[in-house]
Amino acid sequence: MSSIENGWFREMNDQWPGYSVGLKIEKILFEGKSPYQDILVFQSSTFGNVLVLDGCIQCTERDECCYQEMIAHLPINCHPDPKQVLVVGGGDGGVVREVLRHPGVDKVTLCEIDEKVIEVCKMYLPNMAVSMSDPRCHVHVGDGVQFMKEHKNCFDIIITDAPDPIGENLWLDLPIVEQLLYGCRSLFPSTGYAFAGMPTYASGQIGFVMASTNPDVTFNEPLRVLSDEEIAEMGLKFYNSDLHRAAFVLPQFAKKVLYPAVNGDGGKKTAVHDADT
Amino acid sequence: MSSIENGWFREMNDQWPGYSVGLKIEKILFEGKSPYQDILVFQSSTFGNVLVLDGCIQCTERDECCYQEMIAHLPINCHPDPKQVLVVGGGDGGVVREVLRHPGVDKVTLCEIDEKVIEVCKMYLPNMAVSMSDPRCHVHVGDGVQFMKEHKNCFDIIITDAPDPIGENLWLDLPIVEQLLYGCRSLFPSTGYAFAGMPTYASGQIGFVMASTNPDVTFNEPLRVLSDEEIAEMGLKFYNSDLHRAAFVLPQFAKKVLYPAVNGDGGKKTAVHDADT
Repeated sequence: MSSIENGWFREMNDQWPGYSVGLKIEKILFEGKSPYQDILVFQSSTFGNVLVLDGCIQCTERDECCYQEMIAHLPINCHPDPKQVLVVGGGDGGVVREVLRHPGVDKVTLCEIDEKVIEVCKMYLPNMAVSMSDPRCHVHVGDGVQFMKEHKNCFDIIITDAPDPIGENLWLDLPIVEQLLYGCRSLFPSTGYAFAGMPTYASGQIGFVMASTNPDVTFNEPLRVLSDEEIAEMGLKFYNSDLHRAAFVLPQFAKKVLYPAVNGDGGKKTAVHDADT
Repeated sequence: MSSIENGWFREMNDQWPGYSVGLKIEKILFEGKSPYQDILVFQSSTFGNVLVLDGCIQCTERDECCYQEMIAHLPINCHPDPKQVLVVGGGDGGVVREVLRHPGVDKVTLCEIDEKVIEVCKMYLPNMAVSMSDPRCHVHVGDGVQFMKEHKNCFDIIITDAPDPIGENLWLDLPIVEQLLYGCRSLFPSTGYAFAGMPTYASGQIGFVMASTNPDVTFNEPLRVLSDEEIAEMGLKFYNSDLHRAAFVLPQFAKKVLYPAVNGDGGKKTAVHDADT
């Protein structure tokens, strides 16, 4: 449904009918089809290079720090000793880059089904994809669900960075977030939902559903609180520990739906799932 | 620069070049020109009725609760006894509606320069404009700056809800927010900056610059903490006291610029200005 007209990319999708984010195109860098999806990369006039899969904006160089940092550092900073991390999807490499900022992490496995995405991102989004050359990163091309079945209990944290769009955010997809969170609650003793502002995502927001097998995890209170100096050393642009806590505080309309009984504090309750999985 | 094409309204502006929010039009309800601006109201397919001034989306029925509640309740809940409130601009009546939810408020004065906006909103945005019929609301048609000059020290709180666009938010206008906040710091002993997610505003965000002549005001900690029951009684959809605190917690890139020395806690430090004034 998305379109390129008069030099603009217009994102349109049945998941958020009647609403569209547009970015002005400076130059189309890549347009192709893999066995899995349509892949488009363009240089935008004000948001840097942009990756689009099946018509949905995945990341732009200008605001990717929000998405990549939050989806990585929220769970990692809630884990006492994260050594082995699996990233499912995320073939741009941005999440791997963020995970590797943690000195305690020994190994990140990236399981991406679409080799073409990896190849294109290495070419056009080098600041994200560079992480895949790190010796601590192992790239596996294959199906994430299958990989997880074959590698049970191998990872301290699983981050699902699967492609849009399925139910990301509070404004447009609250019933889907509700369903996802309730599903997680039936399977995990600890769950939580956080969100952050993301200019180039529909409704300007991205959400994160988190779940842990450890009943003592409290997602809205990081175990590892970072000083400004540590954040500067790690090279973070978006995440900080106060923002970690604040990301779980919901608008009243969402709190009523997602936390009807528990007063909506973001919740006690480290597999991590991006809300759109 | 904004356009109507193929049944979509596309917001475009020099303040955020290369980026555009689009809303699908169901029906144009009003299109006209006042002595001050172009006025457009349309029924959108998924965001309710939409008010557009000089090509900039001012409010939609679907997400106006965020803007109107935050710009009103952030300052009001930081004031020990707000009785007289001035709203400059805001001819849609939404901010007045929110101010009047506080039982302690005796009178709200709405100073709107453009009578046509008031008239059009009464017709097409009745859930906002209804507030102007409240006996506690006094509507003055005239220039806000002039009115404030003639009514010094008459109000406990002044809320400037002036039209877009001038420098609202962290992603697109950080240097403008910085300049505005530093200007306020040179004039007021207490200042603060808060933000909230707003799907139909450029980059999905709206910011609020706050300033008080009272050195004891701490904007990021409300004086009046509301229970869920009180919030339900007041009819709030978006605001709650935890969200009040969280709205001052900035991403690291913004904290570094706006609070370079004070560790970015949103600040000690009740005239209130929407960031776009």
